[in-house]
Amino acid sequence: MRKIADQWLRDLLGLLYQRRSATRGEITQSTGLNPASVSHSLRYLTQNGTILKVGELESNGGRRREVIKLNEDAAYFVAVDLEGTRIRFAFTNFVGEIRYRWEEDIELGVPLDVRRVVHGIQTVLGNLTPSQRSRVVAIGVSCAGIISKSSQVTAVNLGWQKFPLLAELGKRIDIPIFLEHAHRTCIQAERWLGCAQNSNNCVYIMAGNGIGASIYADGRPLGGRDQMAGELGHIVIDPNASDRCNCGKLGCLEAIASSPNIWRQYAEKMGRPVRHMLGSKVIEVFERARRKDPVALAVLERAAEALGSALACLINLTNPDLIILGGDLVKGEDVLLDRIVEHLKRRTLPDFLEGLQIRVSSLGPDIGIMGAASLAVRSALLDSKLLRKVCSPVLNSLHGAGRPQTSHRKGSPRAKMARV
Amino acid sequence: MRKIADQWLRDLLGLLYQRRSATRGEITQSTGLNPASVSHSLRYLTQNGTILKVGELESNGGRRREVIKLNEDAAYFVAVDLEGTRIRFAFTNFVGEIRYRWEEDIELGVPLDVRRVVHGIQTVLGNLTPSQRSRVVAIGVSCAGIISKSSQVTAVNLGWQKFPLLAELGKRIDIPIFLEHAHRTCIQAERWLGCAQNSNNCVYIMAGNGIGASIYADGRPLGGRDQMAGELGHIVIDPNASDRCNCGKLGCLEAIASSPNIWRQYAEKMGRPVRHMLGSKVIEVFERARRKDPVALAVLERAAEALGSALACLINLTNPDLIILGGDLVKGEDVLLDRIVEHLKRRTLPDFLEGLQIRVSSLGPDIGIMGAASLAVRSALLDSKLLRKVCSPVLNSLHGAGRPQTSHRKGSPRAKMARV
Repeated sequence: MRKIADQWLRDLLGLLYQRRSATRGEITQSTGLNPASVSHSLRYLTQNGTILKVGELESNGGRRREVIKLNEDAAYFVAVDLEGTRIRFAFTNFVGEIRYRWEEDIELGVPLDVRRVVHGIQTVLGNLTPSQRSRVVAIGVSCAGIISKSSQVTAVNLGWQKFPLLAELGKRIDIPIFLEHAHRTCIQAERWLGCAQNSNNCVYIMAGNGIGASIYADGRPLGGRDQMAGELGHIVIDPNASDRCNCGKLGCLEAIASSPNIWRQYAEKMGRPVRHMLGSKVIEVFERARRKDPVALAVLERAAEALGSALACLINLTNPDLIILGGDLVKGEDVLLDRIVEHLKRRTLPDFLEGLQIRVSSLGPDIGIMGAASLAVRSALLDSKLLRKVCSPVLNSLHGAGRPQTSHRKGSPRAKMARV
Repeated sequence: MRKIADQWLRDLLGLLYQRRSATRGEITQSTGLNPASVSHSLRYLTQNGTILKVGELESNGGRRREVIKLNEDAAYFVAVDLEGTRIRFAFTNFVGEIRYRWEEDIELGVPLDVRRVVHGIQTVLGNLTPSQRSRVVAIGVSCAGIISKSSQVTAVNLGWQKFPLLAELGKRIDIPIFLEHAHRTCIQAERWLGCAQNSNNCVYIMAGNGIGASIYADGRPLGGRDQMAGELGHIVIDPNASDRCNCGKLGCLEAIASSPNIWRQYAEKMGRPVRHMLGSKVIEVFERARRKDPVALAVLERAAEALGSALACLINLTNPDLIILGGDLVKGEDVLLDRIVEHLKRRTLPDFLEGLQIRVSSLGPDIGIMGAASLAVRSALLDSKLLRKVCSPVLNSLHGAGRPQTSHRKGSPRAKMARV
């Protein structure tokens, strides 16, 4: 058999992962591979059970066309999302579907014991049959904070200062682990599985306890010197404001428009004491705005103006074609989005607005997990050894059999695990 | 002789262009090529006269090391800078030295006749000997405004609306022409010839009649959907200001801190009529500030705060390691730079400031021409046919002989041409 280049397999499997299914013609066209390379690769992958032919489309008068998709059981992955208020773990199949999940709350700012991360991963793996376990290819970890070139993590919410996460996990777990900043995994999830599949210049805005932008420019993620690009939340919107940000400055976007600060402003104006900064309370402000509460409307107007102003800077500097809003903000879409867009337009040149789409994310709170799963798949396809594992023959006994058993609730009382 | 890959020649010549000279060991190390490929390429290029051995360094006990550099007469280029207030033309050698130049003023907003551009290029070419003419490889054009994917230029100052510059020049000139946005050529000039040679995350700020940022991120230029990224000048700094920008909005950075607007504010405060917006008058404001004129100091303080604020946004969003200030602003470095940096620091997280350098450009007003020359060299190295022309045997008769004759002053009375 002719030698099959890793790059052919990579291109082909990457396309099927993103598109869900494709015909041979679509594969040839989209990958730019020559038809002979596509045929060789498809034969090899079909024989090994990595891909499946799922049906045929009638074409007009010509040959019938096969529709090809990934075998969802050809490879499994573990996805970990350390987003800062909760840690999430999931067992995912080759098409990114979550089969199991494990979640725990964490205490903000208290250093997170790495053994809790290891325990979460092991809990997910512990539910597998041996044959499933043997096809777990990689673990993807999406993490908030700052990640150094040597994979040391500094994250205030996790209580970590230059914590060597990858090295510590590697000591305890024998599956290859890949780590990426949460900003980056979110936009990658939108690119692979969400609404940014056709965009090379898109931005994902995570607006919740903090506010950050995950920028994809000219077909790749924007990192900067220390991979800190996209720090939207600390753009100073109003230097004369009295709103004190976590970072110590006055008038940062985050101090005006993050979920806990929207709630704080509302409570202050209502004369209520603000003891704890509770992001989850933002829902209440949205609810009151729907009932035309003038105080809630004024607070949201200020937040919308600040967000519109910061997004206008972002648009001027990076010229995107798509902005996706995510996080808590999505829950207030009906009372916030139009106002944000209005303020943004007032501050942006028409040339930048023409053809620019602004929409809310459809991936919901699972975006971090889905991004981590995508990270694991992408990294596995790029690594020749892992790629060969993904493409290794799938035993027949595995097809349709050996489904994971129903899982149990265990661990801390706050933890929950559910089969999806 | 073994086949020599274009990529080896590209890597090697690109390195020598940037470094000026290098030893064989440095070439091997920096290009990552294997030593055999380097040897083959060096032999080929030396035989053809494309590169020269200029001396030997004594090494400690080992073999003596040759120092290698480009033959400056192996290839010639024409550089064109259409920056919007003046058009500049230069004849440059293979190491980017300007040998001739031609300059003309243009009238702002009056459509520039493309024949004037053609005339400038022909004037430069007309001074060459036939053997020199035969080694002119490419023309690089740096142009302000917006350049579409099909190379149509929209530039207010040049009076062009979707003008097909490349096509129009191509009809009249039989040398390959490459076109790039002025923002991009400026940062490329700093990367190839200026102070950004070791930076993968740098920004060049052009502050003159307009204000723009040329962003280099993660080792390549940041373009965005329509190559319009870096529109720093139209970030709205103060939405409540009365300063009307050219774009129609109020309170843009440009409306507060561009050269003509700095002058306008000063004149207004002094009760003088402002009939024309003259950028060149900014020098006068700098001069008065040096003499502690309180009005000039107040106007510059406001401009510095606006610039610091916009740069802070830029830093938060792109995380650079180097910011280079260019344009008229350089002339007021002593009265502006410290103030800009102070305002910028007040609005930026310490993590972003650590290791960030801010300096003024050393390339001066020739940066556009130098960038256009670099564009021509870079483009020629990337094009296989032009690469072979660059590497074709240099005739002996050319070495050291056939220097261009002294040029004459000709053309319009405003035009000037000088041998450098």
